[in-house]
Amino acid sequence: MKKLNIAIVGLGNIGSYLYKYLIKNKKILAKKNNCIPIIKFISAKSRNRKRDFKITDKIWLNNYLDAAKSKEIDLIVELIGGAEGPAKKLVFDALKNKKHVVTANKALIAKYGDVLSKIAEKNKVNLEFEASVCGGVPIVRSLKESLIANKIIKVFGIFNGTSNYILSSMDNQNKNFNEVLNNAQKYGYAESNPSADLNGEDVAAKLKILSSLCFNSFINHKIHVEGIKDIDKEDIDNANKLGYKIKLLGFSEIINKKIYQRVHPTLIKKSSYIASIDGVLNAVIIDGKPVGRSIIQGEGAGPSATTSALISDISSILRGNIKFPFSISNKERKKINFSEIRERYFSAYLRFEVKDIQGVLSNITKTFANNNVSIKRIIQNPNKNKGSSSIIIITHSSKDKSLNKIIKQVGNKYFIIKKPKLIRIDDN
Amino acid sequence: MKKLNIAIVGLGNIGSYLYKYLIKNKKILAKKNNCIPIIKFISAKSRNRKRDFKITDKIWLNNYLDAAKSKEIDLIVELIGGAEGPAKKLVFDALKNKKHVVTANKALIAKYGDVLSKIAEKNKVNLEFEASVCGGVPIVRSLKESLIANKIIKVFGIFNGTSNYILSSMDNQNKNFNEVLNNAQKYGYAESNPSADLNGEDVAAKLKILSSLCFNSFINHKIHVEGIKDIDKEDIDNANKLGYKIKLLGFSEIINKKIYQRVHPTLIKKSSYIASIDGVLNAVIIDGKPVGRSIIQGEGAGPSATTSALISDISSILRGNIKFPFSISNKERKKINFSEIRERYFSAYLRFEVKDIQGVLSNITKTFANNNVSIKRIIQNPNKNKGSSSIIIITHSSKDKSLNKIIKQVGNKYFIIKKPKLIRIDDN
Repeated sequence: MKKLNIAIVGLGNIGSYLYKYLIKNKKILAKKNNCIPIIKFISAKSRNRKRDFKITDKIWLNNYLDAAKSKEIDLIVELIGGAEGPAKKLVFDALKNKKHVVTANKALIAKYGDVLSKIAEKNKVNLEFEASVCGGVPIVRSLKESLIANKIIKVFGIFNGTSNYILSSMDNQNKNFNEVLNNAQKYGYAESNPSADLNGEDVAAKLKILSSLCFNSFINHKIHVEGIKDIDKEDIDNANKLGYKIKLLGFSEIINKKIYQRVHPTLIKKSSYIASIDGVLNAVIIDGKPVGRSIIQGEGAGPSATTSALISDISSILRGNIKFPFSISNKERKKINFSEIRERYFSAYLRFEVKDIQGVLSNITKTFANNNVSIKRIIQNPNKNKGSSSIIIITHSSKDKSLNKIIKQVGNKYFIIKKPKLIRIDDN
Repeated sequence: MKKLNIAIVGLGNIGSYLYKYLIKNKKILAKKNNCIPIIKFISAKSRNRKRDFKITDKIWLNNYLDAAKSKEIDLIVELIGGAEGPAKKLVFDALKNKKHVVTANKALIAKYGDVLSKIAEKNKVNLEFEASVCGGVPIVRSLKESLIANKIIKVFGIFNGTSNYILSSMDNQNKNFNEVLNNAQKYGYAESNPSADLNGEDVAAKLKILSSLCFNSFINHKIHVEGIKDIDKEDIDNANKLGYKIKLLGFSEIINKKIYQRVHPTLIKKSSYIASIDGVLNAVIIDGKPVGRSIIQGEGAGPSATTSALISDISSILRGNIKFPFSISNKERKKINFSEIRERYFSAYLRFEVKDIQGVLSNITKTFANNNVSIKRIIQNPNKNKGSSSIIIITHSSKDKSLNKIIKQVGNKYFIIKKPKLIRIDDN
């Protein structure tokens, strides 16, 4: 039987899990793929870090970059992380030296995926990154293979488990953002530095990768990104009363030959599928022709789910299934226009915290009228013991630019006591 | 660029859709797979049937079996249907003559999949059948490739759109079985002869295929199958009151190294994911290690969704991605014990229609006690103007054999006015 020699670089939680998995399941993987996966080398920043397996001299590589040079290595699994530095150096070197690469590094692929895929294609090696997008949810392979027949119109969903855990816990446990975040960190659902999870950056990287797979385009950095830090318990409660949930969603869609990429907290109907996804799960929804709507849901992160994704990529290479990294040859990938969402239409939820003074409501509604935004629903709630009120307005479908103008204009009024809030609504 | 010559046999709704799709999308498929798909021949029962495309003499094959003999053909797409007759003859001949085969024929694969896969493996050609299980839901490829790392413990879900449409319409539109079926036939959601959809046979064929993919076992026909014909509107209403929905589900699971296959109407909690799937959709849930729970949902049938599946199989062959038809070599597939569900434990819903006579309830509950089945909940509803009552009993987890014994024993009592009913409950 054929053999494939593998180097794993990076032995954190994921790398260690993968290493042990590969040792344990070598036989069954060989049987399924007709090729034996052999771990030739492993490498990491520190050999002496406490791990629950032994590292022999023979398998340990002092200089991780030697993996990319070694004639004994066919495939490098990069689990260092980060778009720059060692991970970048390793993956570039590996592909240049005609090694297959499997990586879980979304930051790297979102930043350098286009140039890396050109090298892979030229050198006829695989560059696989299933594990970089939504862990155990096999969305990359589904787009490249299972749904290959389809013209994708829209992809959206929950791509970040930490944010989703926080939003759904604020809702279910009736707690505010900081309380929930503290708990999430305590129980390991949020990292000690959770900023990329909470500010939308993590979702943005995944969405950029999905966009280029869905639309056969190059990776594009024109993307609107908002995180969940400004969501108050009040917004979640208001949404509930109006029949909505608030989720941090990523969307990429093609409208009139233009692609819109956006990541933001979104009000979605309680009865919708995506509203029912609580906790750390991820869910991806794809609208395509001819297949219609497909949904894939699963664990979005963690060593076990990520290993499932890494092994599917490794198996594809074991089987000799050579594919273009982004589904189609680089010379066929299209330069599609990516548009700012300013021109797109949304209905939206706006919240204004105002002083209880006469004429406020008429002042606000006049600003809406001046900006050609029509109001669908309005609720005014007096705040307890404060001489102030919350005004919640749900709009009809309106230009995003106009909605933001209202936020700015009303935000400067004498009666405003807190920065106004805009959350877009999605009715799909 | 390489070329692959294809024959499509069977030009009903699906075959016709596929043919037109392949003509229209030849270029993009060639680009994505680095190999040009060429339709060399098409064949069907009748050349003269009304179709919205022309059939030239050059492409028409009078004798469909010539496709399996022709040296010009690399791949045969079988869309005739049925486990026996022409479909069987064609697929056997094709594989014996070293042609790749793509089929949407679940009956054929469920019956002859094992022997067919041996021929395919011996001759190093692909036998692909994504389209045979749940149309646009890419569950076969997901099990064979995306989730290849996983030890599957359980697969279950909604595998028949017609049954699901009928059950959810009975619920939402407050109609009885026959009314809904008539409507479903009128609108094309049920065939004129819907028996295989309604009696569970269609689900059973799909489940047998999924079982062997999940557990690396041979296809096994030990399976418990019940359809939806005995579900009354009353059962759906009772289920609603108790916090459940009734769905026709297929389950295959491995418990203590034994596989249990079963298809039956099932009470599932309203809050569960599967309860929310209404209409003709299909949904497959997979519990695996290390990935955890994965869900794939989509269109289960129809020419467009099925074409999406067929094209994914054809693309895999275009790309030269040779795989074992059932994920692993036939000599490695296991002979696992398949068990009758009689020994398995379920909690269950039982309904007894009884005469309003003294002592009935004590008589019934005594039968439960005698069979060691303990009762969790009991509801007695008097029927209007009939001198009769419905007794609904929800049991604790009990041996299936005992539950059936109760149905039989109570069914023979003097006070019973209608055959008692047993519907199993699933709490996952």
